[in-house]
Amino acid sequence: MNLEAIGIIHSPHQESQNTPLQPPLAGGSEGTVEVFPQFAAGLKDLDGFERIWLLYWFDRASEPQLVVAPYLDDERRGLFATRAPCRPNPIGLSAVRLLRIEGNILKIGDLDILDGTPLLDIKPYVPSFDVFAAQRIGWCGSSKKDRRMADGRFEGPGGKRPGHGEA
Amino acid sequence: MNLEAIGIIHSPHQESQNTPLQPPLAGGSEGTVEVFPQFAAGLKDLDGFERIWLLYWFDRASEPQLVVAPYLDDERRGLFATRAPCRPNPIGLSAVRLLRIEGNILKIGDLDILDGTPLLDIKPYVPSFDVFAAQRIGWCGSSKKDRRMADGRFEGPGGKRPGHGEA
Repeated sequence: MNLEAIGIIHSPHQESQNTPLQPPLAGGSEGTVEVFPQFAAGLKDLDGFERIWLLYWFDRASEPQLVVAPYLDDERRGLFATRAPCRPNPIGLSAVRLLRIEGNILKIGDLDILDGTPLLDIKPYVPSFDVFAAQRIGWCGSSKKDRRMADGRFEGPGGKRPGHGEA
Repeated sequence: MNLEAIGIIHSPHQESQNTPLQPPLAGGSEGTVEVFPQFAAGLKDLDGFERIWLLYWFDRASEPQLVVAPYLDDERRGLFATRAPCRPNPIGLSAVRLLRIEGNILKIGDLDILDGTPLLDIKPYVPSFDVFAAQRIGWCGSSKKDRRMADGRFEGPGGKRPGHGEA
């Protein structure tokens, strides 16, 4: 199962330190998504959507760890019960605001993604598919941490994970 | 950027015909997610969550098409404005109900995924990260179709897309 980048994310967040943890914590942070020209035909009709899912490659994450100390808790948790980037398949998922589209460039708000991140997919955010009440939220329900930004704890020592720059 | 399956999805949906389009249209349909033993340590703490994101490989989708006739509309739309499976990176995304966990087996409800689909990732569904009002929903807002099930229009002629069975 091989992936190819369909674009690249341009962001004010240059390093994981102080990058917002999630879109609602991004303070409206703006950037752009550059979709490579050969995929631009797939953007037709996207401008009608207020919000979109970005799927992307965590290219600067450390090697996979199955138990992690998440940003929002004091205890170590199972990786799949967290959104930490050090995953066996390091795919990130963010519901960002779509401000406008100019050709193959998407102007984005609520951006929580590092500059230069390879883009894998775009899907429309559709509340009837994606919104659930989900009252039980595990350890997140008892989290006392009020952190909004990352601190680099999941960054790989050697920089980028394999795959960066492959388009 | 290479992926490895971290598990496999076992589902009553054997072919794309009559497979639910999305979890809320699945009528509570139940199945299991088998997480391969070497990744099971990452499931710690997941049982506290009512709902989880499954990311998976659309292994029976046709080759990428940048403009498609979606199930829920009469007009052809840009691929990235739809959830159709024939994507450059055929990654599926579903917020399913987590009923319980027994060892490395997750019992799932609201399942809209084909039997035998390779699992790529599990993330907790956290309303404060994932729920947005998103009033503008493009062509979905004017859709007149009341379809709930797929009909096989995005199925590849040769069966499975490369990657199936690679674990």
